[in-house]
Amino acid sequence: MSLPTTVTVYEVGARDGLQNEKALVPVEVKAEFVRRLLAAGHTAVETTSFVSPRWVPQLADAAELLDLLGPAADGVRMPVLVPNAKGLDRALAAGVREIAVFGSATETFARKNLNCSVEESLEMFRPVVERALAEGLAVRGYLSMCFGDPWEGAVAATTVAGHARTLFDMGIGELSLGDTIGVATPGQVVALLEALDQQGITVDQLAVHFHDTYGQALANTLVALQHGITVVDASAGGLGGCPYAESATGNLATEDLLWQLDGLGIDTGVDLRALARTSLWMAEQLGRPSPSRAVQALSKELA
Amino acid sequence: MSLPTTVTVYEVGARDGLQNEKALVPVEVKAEFVRRLLAAGHTAVETTSFVSPRWVPQLADAAELLDLLGPAADGVRMPVLVPNAKGLDRALAAGVREIAVFGSATETFARKNLNCSVEESLEMFRPVVERALAEGLAVRGYLSMCFGDPWEGAVAATTVAGHARTLFDMGIGELSLGDTIGVATPGQVVALLEALDQQGITVDQLAVHFHDTYGQALANTLVALQHGITVVDASAGGLGGCPYAESATGNLATEDLLWQLDGLGIDTGVDLRALARTSLWMAEQLGRPSPSRAVQALSKELA
Repeated sequence: MSLPTTVTVYEVGARDGLQNEKALVPVEVKAEFVRRLLAAGHTAVETTSFVSPRWVPQLADAAELLDLLGPAADGVRMPVLVPNAKGLDRALAAGVREIAVFGSATETFARKNLNCSVEESLEMFRPVVERALAEGLAVRGYLSMCFGDPWEGAVAATTVAGHARTLFDMGIGELSLGDTIGVATPGQVVALLEALDQQGITVDQLAVHFHDTYGQALANTLVALQHGITVVDASAGGLGGCPYAESATGNLATEDLLWQLDGLGIDTGVDLRALARTSLWMAEQLGRPSPSRAVQALSKELA
Repeated sequence: MSLPTTVTVYEVGARDGLQNEKALVPVEVKAEFVRRLLAAGHTAVETTSFVSPRWVPQLADAAELLDLLGPAADGVRMPVLVPNAKGLDRALAAGVREIAVFGSATETFARKNLNCSVEESLEMFRPVVERALAEGLAVRGYLSMCFGDPWEGAVAATTVAGHARTLFDMGIGELSLGDTIGVATPGQVVALLEALDQQGITVDQLAVHFHDTYGQALANTLVALQHGITVVDASAGGLGGCPYAESATGNLATEDLLWQLDGLGIDTGVDLRALARTSLWMAEQLGRPSPSRAVQALSKELA
C-alpha cells in the first residue's frame, strides 16, 4: 500500500464545528478550545468565520476571538472563513494571514443559497480572492457537495473539476473537496481525483473533507491517502453535529482519523490522547457526548 | 482500484449481536429477525450458538429458534456456533448443515478463558471439527483478537497465521479474522493477509470481521477488499453493543458496509433499505437506537 509518510490534519472543529452547534459558546471557551487544539500539536486550525452575524450568530464574536488568540505562531496556519468583501475587510483588520472561501459544486445549492449559477457564485469570490492575494494572504478554497447533494443526487466529477479549475485560476493555493452530505464512496473519490488531474490539478494542491453521515469518511480518507492526498480536514470530537441529532453534519472526527494515521505510521504531529482530552472537555462545555468512536473508546482510559 | 465484483455479507447480528445484548429477546422476535434478514436478501446468516445456557443465557433458546425457522433454503448458509462436543450434539439434533468454531489468537485470552495455551485450545476443537466433517457439515472457524488484545497489545501476524494454519489443517473451510477490540488499522490487515499467504492460506478461504470501536471497521474492510477478500462479517444495525455503552463490542453495521459496497458497484444481493427497516424494527424491540450511521441517516427517509 502506497501512503504518504506525513499528513497535515486541517482542524475545522472551531469553525465548521461550532458554527453548526445550536448552543452559543462563550468566546473565552472558544479561545481555550483553540489553544488546546494548538497545544495538542495542530498546525492548521480554522478558527472562525467573518460571515454576517445575521446568518450565523454563533460566530458573531469572530474579531473578539482572534483578538484573544493573538497572531498565529510561525509555521502555524490559522485561517478564517471569508464569504465576501466585507468579511475580508474584517479579516484584514484582525490581522489574519490566511482566508478560506466557500463555494458549492452543485447548481441547485448555488441557486437556493445565492440565486445564481455556480460559475456566477464563484465569480463573486474573484475580487475577494484577488484583494486577499494582493494583501499577501494565503487563500484556501472549499467546494461543498462534491459527491452529491440532496436535490441532484450524484454530481459529475468533470463538473466539480471544472469549478475547481476556475478557483485555481483565480489564485487559490489549496482546495478542500467537501462531501457535505456524507454520501461518497471510495470509487467516487478516485474518479474525482482523476478528473481533477485531467484539469492539471494535482493532489499536492488538494485537501479532502469527508462527513461520516453514512459511516464512510475514514474509508474515503484512506483511498484519498492511497492516491497521494496529504491534507485531511477533520473536526475534533466530530464536532459540528452529532449523527444522532436532527442537525447532523457528521464531520469526520479528528480522533478517528488520528487512530488510523497513527496505526499506519503516518506522522501528523498531533497527540491523539491530548486531542481526545480536549474533545471530552469540549463535550462537557456543550453538554452532550462526542459522536467520535475513538473519543468514546478512549474516554475510560482518559477519565 | 482493484475490487471484487461480488461480496458475500456474512450476517452475525442474530448470534454475535443478540449474544451481547443485555436484554433477553423472545424467541419469536429472534425468528422474525432472521426471517427479515433473509427476506432482505442475506444468504449467510449465523443464527445462534449452542453454547451452554449457563454461559450465555441469551442464547438458551437455540434449538427452539432453529425449530421455528426450519431448514435453510438451498444456497443459503445458516451456520450455528458450536463450542464443544455437546454443542455439536445439539446442532446435529437440530439438523444444522454448517457450524462455526471460535478460537482466540492470543495466549492471554486463551489462558484467561480456558486456562490453556492457544494451541491447546485449538486442539480441543479437533474432535468437534472432525466429527462435523464426517457428518457432512461445513465448518467455519473464527479467530478473535487477530490484531491486538487488551492485555498483550499488538499481536504478531505470523503468530495468527500459524494458528490459522492449524485450523485449516483440521479441515475448516473458511476462517473469519476477528478484530475483537476494534484496534486494527489498514496496514495491519495487509500484513496479516500476507502472513496468511505465506502459510498457503489464500483470500478465497478467508473472511474479515471488524469492529467499529475506534471507527476503523470500514476502512479496514476496504483494504481487505482491495486485497481480494470477498466475505465480510457484519451485524445488522451494528447490533451487539452500542459504542456508547459499557458493553460495547461495536460490530461493523451491515448497513454502513452496504452503503460502501453499493457505492462501489459491488453486488451483495442484500437490499440496504429493507435491511435498515429491519434494524429500525429490531431497535424498537430492544428499546434503543441503532448505532449504525447509515441506519440513523436513513431513518427519516424510511419513517
